[in-house]
This record gives sequence, C-alpha cells and structure tokens, in this order.
Amino acid sequence: MKIGIFTSGGDAAGMNPAIKAFVELAIENSFEPYFIYDGLEGLIDGKIEKADFHMVAGILHRGGTILRSSRSKRFYDKKYRQKAFDNLEKHGIERLIVLGGDGSFRAMDVFYKEFGINFAGIPVTIDNDIYGTDYCLGVDTALNVIRHLLDNIRDTASSFGRAFVVETMGRSCGYLAIVSAIASGAEICIAPELEVDFEGIKKRLKREIENGRTYILAVVGEGSNMTETVRDFLLNELKFDTRVTVLGHVQRGGNPTIFDRLMAYKFVECAIEHIKENIHHMVGFKNSKFYLIDIDSVANNKYKLDDFLIKLAQTKAV
Amino acid sequence: MKIGIFTSGGDAAGMNPAIKAFVELAIENSFEPYFIYDGLEGLIDGKIEKADFHMVAGILHRGGTILRSSRSKRFYDKKYRQKAFDNLEKHGIERLIVLGGDGSFRAMDVFYKEFGINFAGIPVTIDNDIYGTDYCLGVDTALNVIRHLLDNIRDTASSFGRAFVVETMGRSCGYLAIVSAIASGAEICIAPELEVDFEGIKKRLKREIENGRTYILAVVGEGSNMTETVRDFLLNELKFDTRVTVLGHVQRGGNPTIFDRLMAYKFVECAIEHIKENIHHMVGFKNSKFYLIDIDSVANNKYKLDDFLIKLAQTKAV
Amino acid sequence: MKIGIFTSGGDAAGMNPAIKAFVELAIENSFEPYFIYDGLEGLIDGKIEKADFHMVAGILHRGGTILRSSRSKRFYDKKYRQKAFDNLEKHGIERLIVLGGDGSFRAMDVFYKEFGINFAGIPVTIDNDIYGTDYCLGVDTALNVIRHLLDNIRDTASSFGRAFVVETMGRSCGYLAIVSAIASGAEICIAPELEVDFEGIKKRLKREIENGRTYILAVVGEGSNMTETVRDFLLNELKFDTRVTVLGHVQRGGNPTIFDRLMAYKFVECAIEHIKENIHHMVGFKNSKFYLIDIDSVANNKYKLDDFLIKLAQTKAV
Amino acid sequence: MKIGIFTSGGDAAGMNPAIKAFVELAIENSFEPYFIYDGLEGLIDGKIEKADFHMVAGILHRGGTILRSSRSKRFYDKKYRQKAFDNLEKHGIERLIVLGGDGSFRAMDVFYKEFGINFAGIPVTIDNDIYGTDYCLGVDTALNVIRHLLDNIRDTASSFGRAFVVETMGRSCGYLAIVSAIASGAEICIAPELEVDFEGIKKRLKREIENGRTYILAVVGEGSNMTETVRDFLLNELKFDTRVTVLGHVQRGGNPTIFDRLMAYKFVECAIEHIKENIHHMVGFKNSKFYLIDIDSVANNKYKLDDFLIKLAQTKAV
Repeated sequence: MKIGIFTSGGDAAGMNPAIKAFVELAIENSFEPYFIYDGLEGLIDGKIEKADFHMVAGILHRGGTILRSSRSKRFYDKKYRQKAFDNLEKHGIERLIVLGGDGSFRAMDVFYKEFGINFAGIPVTIDNDIYGTDYCLGVDTALNVIRHLLDNIRDTASSFGRAFVVETMGRSCGYLAIVSAIASGAEICIAPELEVDFEGIKKRLKREIENGRTYILAVVGEGSNMTETVRDFLLNELKFDTRVTVLGHVQRGGNPTIFDRLMAYKFVECAIEHIKENIHHMVGFKNSKFYLIDIDSVANNKYKLDDFLIKLAQTKAV
Repeated sequence: MKIGIFTSGGDAAGMNPAIKAFVELAIENSFEPYFIYDGLEGLIDGKIEKADFHMVAGILHRGGTILRSSRSKRFYDKKYRQKAFDNLEKHGIERLIVLGGDGSFRAMDVFYKEFGINFAGIPVTIDNDIYGTDYCLGVDTALNVIRHLLDNIRDTASSFGRAFVVETMGRSCGYLAIVSAIASGAEICIAPELEVDFEGIKKRLKREIENGRTYILAVVGEGSNMTETVRDFLLNELKFDTRVTVLGHVQRGGNPTIFDRLMAYKFVECAIEHIKENIHHMVGFKNSKFYLIDIDSVANNKYKLDDFLIKLAQTKAV
Repeated sequence: MKIGIFTSGGDAAGMNPAIKAFVELAIENSFEPYFIYDGLEGLIDGKIEKADFHMVAGILHRGGTILRSSRSKRFYDKKYRQKAFDNLEKHGIERLIVLGGDGSFRAMDVFYKEFGINFAGIPVTIDNDIYGTDYCLGVDTALNVIRHLLDNIRDTASSFGRAFVVETMGRSCGYLAIVSAIASGAEICIAPELEVDFEGIKKRLKREIENGRTYILAVVGEGSNMTETVRDFLLNELKFDTRVTVLGHVQRGGNPTIFDRLMAYKFVECAIEHIKENIHHMVGFKNSKFYLIDIDSVANNKYKLDDFLIKLAQTKAV
Repeated sequence: MKIGIFTSGGDAAGMNPAIKAFVELAIENSFEPYFIYDGLEGLIDGKIEKADFHMVAGILHRGGTILRSSRSKRFYDKKYRQKAFDNLEKHGIERLIVLGGDGSFRAMDVFYKEFGINFAGIPVTIDNDIYGTDYCLGVDTALNVIRHLLDNIRDTASSFGRAFVVETMGRSCGYLAIVSAIASGAEICIAPELEVDFEGIKKRLKREIENGRTYILAVVGEGSNMTETVRDFLLNELKFDTRVTVLGHVQRGGNPTIFDRLMAYKFVECAIEHIKENIHHMVGFKNSKFYLIDIDSVANNKYKLDDFLIKLAQTKAV
C-alpha cells in the first residue's frame, strides 16, 4: 500500500522529525512512502515523489519542513480536487498523512467524502488551539524559543528599571502567552481566556514596588489585542519607562526540542498503526494516550485551556 | 505553620524554579517559608533562614540551586540527626520539602520515624531512575543539552565520514541514552535495558553502508560500561575512523526548559497541597497526575523504563 | 587612590564582564574600587559602595548590569552635578570609569571641566555608532542573537515560500543590519548608509526567482525607516506573501559572547593603565589597538562604517 | 578561469560560509567555481562538479562542510598526485582553494612544485596554531561552544561546592584553554605555554577559600597532559570533591558565529583577489589585515600566542 505525506498550513517545528518517522515507520511496516511537495498546491500540481531513507537523513534538527508548505485557495474548487485525486490515482497512492492545522483537516475531510481517500491528520501548530488534543507539534519548541527571549529581556528590564510588554503569538488562543508567563515568572499576563482587572494589577504592583520591585515584565497574547493598552497602563498608571516587543515569527522556527521530536514520532506511529483502516481522523493526544478523533468533532468544538493553567495565570491578570 | 526547604544529592536543572514556586505557594497558602542551605549538612549546622519574595527574584533561568546542595555522611549518625531536629525545633519548623533523589528521601524517612518531622520529597535527578514517578525534574533540560551536543557531533560526523561514540550519564538507568538516541536518530543505542547483538548491528550497518551510509552515531549509556567495546567494534569490525566523547557534567546544568519549569511548579504545588497532613511521602507523577507515594515503596522498587521506549531503542541495538 | 565605576545609557551585553575586570584590575594595581549604582542618578543620590571580589563572583555570563543603569535629566542641572561631586568627595573617590554611550561621556566631560574629576569612558552600545572606536561592547553578542533569530526565520521562509522583512536596531547606524545581512546571506539589505534602488532589486530578484528562488529574506536597519516600504515592495512588486518582524529589545540582552568578554577586559585594562594620568577620555579600539581619545573628538565626529562592509551590503540594496 | 575548492583535515565551523562566499565571489569575478568532494581523496578519485548558487543555498548556519573532508594517505604517493593532476586537467581547473590546516597546505605545496597548480590555503582549525595568522576559521565558534558548557558547569560547581577540571582541545597549542579560562573567569588555567606552580596555586586558593570561595573551576588544555594531575591536586591538596570533564568533539561543531561567518568571507575574498597571480600561499590575518604568506614560512615556524593572553592566563597557573 502506498501512503503519501504532505505538510500544510502554518509553520512549526517538529514537521521534519515527523517526516523522518513517517518514512522509517512506513518502510518498517511494508508500506511505500511518498512525498507530496508544497502542500495541497503540490497535490493539485502532481509534485509527488517516492520517498526513501536517504531523503530524510540529517533533517531531525532542522526547523521548517523539507516538503515545503502552502495555503491553497484552488483546493476549495472541486475541479482542482479532481486533479489532486487524479494525481494520487496515477501514483497508486491510497492513503494520506497530513501535518497541519484544523483547516487542512477539514479540507481533507471534504476530499475524503468526495473521493474516498483515507487520511490521518497530525496536529501541528504553535497556537496549541486544536480541539481533541492536549498537544500540537511545535508548541514545546516555540515555548523554549520564547523562554530564551524572555530571559534576555528580563535581564535588561532588571538592569534598567523598565517595564517590558512582550506580545506572543497564538491567535485567539492564549496558551503560548499563559505558559510563557508562568514559566518565566512574568508579573502580568494578558490572554483571551483571562479576566483582566487593571485596577487589581495596579494595586498589586504598587504594593510590590513599595517593597522594592524595580521592573515589570508583561506577557500579552496577540489574541487579546491589548498590547498597546498594557503599554499605556504601565506608562501612565505605574509611571514606568515602557518598551513593547512583538516577538513575531522568530517563535515559529528553530531546531525542534526533544519533546517535539519524540511526540512527532508517536503521532506518526499512531497514524501508521491505523492507516489501513477506514481512517479519516485526526490523531489526538489526551491524558498521555494517542487516539483517533473524527474531523467533525475537531472542527465543531473549541479547544479549552487546562483549568490549572488559567487559574495560575489569572493571578497575573488581577 | 513553618515549612523548610532544602536541596540534596546530585545536581539537575529545575531546582531553582521549584524553590521559587515553594516561596510563592507557601506565602499564598499562609505558610511561612524557610530556607535551609547546604542540604542535610546545613540542617545539622543550623544554616536556616526565613525566606521571602526578594530571595527568589530572577532565579528561574539559573541552573544549579541557590540553596546549594551536599552529600552528608554525618546524617547517618543519630547524634547529628538530633542536632538537625534541635535546629528545626528552635526555628519552629514543622514540615520539610526535600528536592533530591531517593537516597535523600530514605534519609528523611528515618528522620521522620525518629522525630516525627513530616516531609514531602520531590524527585530531582537527570537519571530519571526513581520508582513511583514517570518524570524527575531536570530530565528535559538534560535531554535538550544532549540534543544540542549530538546535533553538533552529527554535523561533523557526516562531514568527515566518521563514527562517533557518545557516552551519556544515567547511572544504571538507560533513559537518557535511549531517549537521546531515538530523538537524535542515532544509528546505535546501547543501554542496560537493551539486549545488544553486535553481529546484528554489523549486518544492519553493512547493508546501510552499501546503500550510501558514510558515518555512524552511537549513543551509549554509562551504566552499560560498553563505551570502549563499541568503539573497538566500530573501528575493527566496520573499519570506521572512530572517536569517543564522554559528555560528562555538562549534561547536568543550564537554564531549565519550559517543561522543567512547569513541572517544578506542579510538583511543589502537590507537595504544598498535602503538607499539613501526616505526610512522609514522595510526590510522584504518573499518567499525567501528581500523587503521593510512601518512601518504602520508592526505596524497595526499581524504576522500569517505558516499554515503548525500549522497543524503539532495541532496534538500534541489533 | 579610589576609583568609582558606573553604567549609563542603553543596555548591552558586556557590562558585567567589564565590571568584574574593573574590580580585579583595580585591586591588582592597588586601587580601591567603588561601585556607583543606577548610573548618574545614583551618583547624584550617593548610591556608592566599596567593591570587592565577592560582589563580582558569577556575573560573567549575565546580561544587563549588576550596577543597574539609568538616564538622568537631573545631571543636566549644575545643582545636581554639585551633589554628585559632593558624594564623590565624601567617599574620597578621585577617578571614574563610565560604561555607556557618547551622551554619557559628554555629560562626564562637562563634569570634569567643572569639578576636575578625571574619568575614562568605555564605549558600550549595540549600535556600534561611536566615533573613535571600531568596536563598542555588546555588538558581537547582539549580532549573534540576531543570527540565531535570522537562522530560524530563514528555515521557515524557505519552507513556506515567503518573504520576510526583519527590522534590526541600530538607530541611525546601519552596522547591525549590514553585518547581519551579510553574515546571514540575506537577499536584501536596507540601511541608512546604503543607496537603495528598488528597480534594481526587482530586476535582480526576478531573475533569481526565474532560476528557482522561492523565498526572500530582507534585513532593514531601523534608522532607514523603510520597513513598511520594503514590505509593500515585496508584496506588490514581487507578489510574495510577506511578513514583518521587528526584532526589538531581544537584541540587547543575553549571555555575553567570548569576544565581548575579552574586549570588556581589554577596554578596562587600558582605562586602568591610564587612570592615574590627567584622563578625561574615551578608550577607543582602532586597528587592533586600544588608545585614548578626547571627548570633543568623539562628540564632534560621526562614526563611519567600514567601506568593505558598505561595498558588500550595497550589492543587496540594488 | 576555473577554480576548484575543497576542504581538508580537521573539522571546524566556518567551512560552509567560506564555500558559499567562494561560489558567490568566483561568479562575481567571472571565474567558474568547481567543487571537489571528500578532500584530497576526492581530488584523486575525480569527485569534481561544477558549482552554482543553488548548491550553497541555506548552508551558512550548518556546521561541518557540505564538501566533506578526509585525511589522505594516498596523496603522499606521487602516483596518486598524478591522478589528481589528471583530474584537474580533464576539467580544465587551473587554480585551487584549500580550506584546512598546515598539513594540507604543505601537501598542496608539493603538488604545486610538481605540477604547477596554483593554490591559496585558508587556515581552518579550532586549535588556532598556524604560523602566519592571528586567526584560524572556527576558533570563535569553538570558544563560544566552550563558553556555554563552562557556564553550565560553573552553575553546578557553585551549587555543589565542587571542583571541576575541564579539558579543552587545542593539541600542543593552549589558545582554546587560555581564552576560555580568561573569558569564563576560571580559577585555574593549565596550558603548554604557561609555567605551572602548584604550590603557588595552593597558597592562592587556600587564601580565597578562607575568604569564602566554595568551588573551583580549572581549565586544562589537552596539550599539557595534566588533567589527571590537576584532579589529584584539587582532591588531595585542596580536599575538594573533584570531577573531570573532557569536552571532546562537541567543541568542533555547530552553527558558525557571526565572527566566523564574516572572517570566512574575508579570507575567501583575499584568496579570490590574488587567485590569478602565481599564487601558492596561505591567506593570513595579521594586525587586522589579510595578506599572503608562503607555505615554507607557515610550515617552518611555530605559532606564538599573544603575550597579553599568556600574561593574563599565567596568573591562573600560579
């Protein structure tokens, strides 16, 4: 049986280790692995190649994806999905593994319903905002990149008696902001999941300033749209020389951490284990276990952050 | 209620984040936090000080422990345990939190039985070899330090067509070697838990060399005592220019990863939650949950590596 | 003879190694070292303390400055300079060493002319824009921080076929942008020192795109004020999905590199060597040598970038 | 004119940036660049390929060398040098650029004298031990790798009140040990260039221990062969719990620093500038300038360490 793999949607570390695991596990289980380059665009254009061990040598520590990725508007058009299907049929590829976000999974679900191509989706996004899984590939690497940057910023904040507002990615999900703030001991955390009380923050920090606090580190999730508000607050209410840093795309990249490398392997292993079945699911990770969840459930539910994290971070928003 | 904390035994990242969490959670829960410096030696010598927020500012990203650690022979002697107890009584400290290994927990258990001092042990060691917990603080940081070093070595191995034998720490436990080998895609993994078949390895690698392999990376856990054997094997049987690198103490240190910082918080939170009870246990982490386990169970059972990891690494030992 | 040291102005790595070198070299040469905290503000407020070896233990690898820094408006007022002088006289401090930028040196020069306090300035700024020295402390560390971030961004740019516009610091000096662009192989470099020809860039990159180029990395120095222009150009003229990242304050901090640690030592050594003389100069580094240059020359001339660098970077602006 | 490049001898960072600069500068100057793989072995076996821009995309941040390297015994034999020459003639390659150590340059000099093939050698070795140049490519990267490891070790040394003996590479040259020890503030430095006085060290450290010193970091260059001696000294004379770490090959690899990337460019630029001449020299870097030096001078003289460094480090050996 021939299985194709492609990467789709936003960039995150862990894709290359997953691609390597795919080739190794496919061959070990007597499947024939195929690469599809440039995501859904490449599927439409037939950028398909038989994969082997050589093609995945030395890629474990590289950020990004050797298969390249894309966002495809054409795939919304049935005409192009037909082309995609024709390409798969030409190569005899019967199954697909998709590394990407829930948007990509939904597109594949439509494709499955039309053409019967089975697939397994593996959640990859630094936003960690996909329903049905506690963990998305790339998150641990992103968090550790943020950690280094926050450690740097804290050094200078404390040296110069300043306030820093650091905006993290995460779209409407506050996971990155919340975990970074907790793990870096930020004084303020603002995220869509938190109830913000500036009066409370002001009272708390004024007390700390009286007790010797000379600098402030605030972490703000982009989804809250409050970066400027927090800056103005620190400047006007707490009278701090305040700087804003929007971390931006540097959060996405880099050498995958051990955790992301191991999780990449396990996600792919679960996908390969079930790939012969009538599969059109995402591989999820819940309570330390990998399992399959149908795409409708993934698409129609909203990821909810761990209560423990919210409780912990909430103390930094009041 | 006054609670003391000290660090004991081997060095590992995550101690400072745990100490910071301790001070914050103790105060939040209306306990009085105390620092005991230099481990059990400091307990005997009365190096005890009331702790406050200022003392834990800016320590999250530092390796080592601001409380310093030690190994104490004197504590085996009842006379010195009496001194230790007298010191605690003088300060009115009723509970202890111990960051260390199972040896330290056993010492505390004896102390508890003699003097009734309740305590919670938090497992900290890069060896990840303590029964009753899937995770010991410091392991993720150690693994990521090893990852960087293996990535460096692989670059030069592939450039120079060499074989490298890299020895990791871990004492009699192969966790570090096994996870590093898997996550770094090493060709050979040797660890106490694995059955090694050099004939099998030879056959496998000869086939790969015929198919174009030009270098070899072998990861060997120190507990297997086979570093030299593997070197000789690569040199004599596979005719590779072979170098040995013993990673040594650089594995222990450094800026704690996000995972170790979060786990530090959660371990301490569980300890604080139960600290008022008749506690003389270790905090363990099993199946995504924190719980208490008595010291006898910890001391009398041997940690067993995850079958998944052994299965995966076993393919690198034959 | 008593010598004081303080840090002033913007933040950059290398201050702590310089402070450590100061204490060691002062004592070795039979001077008495003093710390002045919080820059010129602390000089006014008398935050002065005798320094010893213990106070500089374990600081080599910390970003920021243990002496803290500030910008002082009060020091423009003679009344406060008188207070500063009185504080020095009270402690018997006859000489000062100032780690900072040319603004701080000019302030000290005024102070010298009024009160006769000799001083040596050591140039510290990541902007590398001070006349009279080829190198300012902190630059190498900043460049290596930027390198890591650009390496990350390039990985994802190449995976996703995107254009990235990365804005570096540097104020009106393009040094950081130019060296980063050269050392990271950026396709476009925009800086105040360069003549930009968008038509030329367009022609060059169109040709490269025809030859297979799939992504673009543009480095823009903040002083050029062209970040948005470059974004629009890439989006509209070259039709690339384009992202902007403003690196911000993460460039300033972090563990000083070997080069900054060594240079810190050498700058301080030169200052100490001449500190007994009638000194009111900056220590400069020119053609591999350290020397003294008077503050008027520093203040009244503009730093000029190395022709080699401009020539090299200019090819990335046309 | 066709110019070939190959990498030879020991591994060091900076080779890939030099290879990239070579392709770009060759094309810019209307030469035709050729790659020779596997060093002198590949020259003998005719592993030669025309180079273009695509082949050097995305290699700036990779350790090792994409051209691979080797040590060649066959090249000592005239028969194989004839083969090498025939290969060059077949491709019409008239000039060579060699990235490697003095051994490789001497081999090329013999080849030049026999066959008239002009060449430029670029010094690449982390040992920094080649006469005629103040700097060899790879040294800055190696030093910064060592810095991170020493920073880690110092954290744990200070936490656990231990002594650490860290052995660096460098063969008979103490450059790495000396600069690392200075830049990391090691208490002891042992290197071939230093006069060691254990009685002096003992007296000095005993005084410091009385004043509160609780740990010791000793950096030992491998060329001194004194790692075990220092260990025994710290254990027996100063009664410290002492650990030895031999850093080994991890020093060689990794992402090249900014300094190594820039220097790579400048070394290659000087080589290309003179490549049309009757060149059979090494490119050296002296007093901030690049120049050519004949191979006999390189081969027959011994590199001498900077007096400043020796003076500075000598205080750590007595």
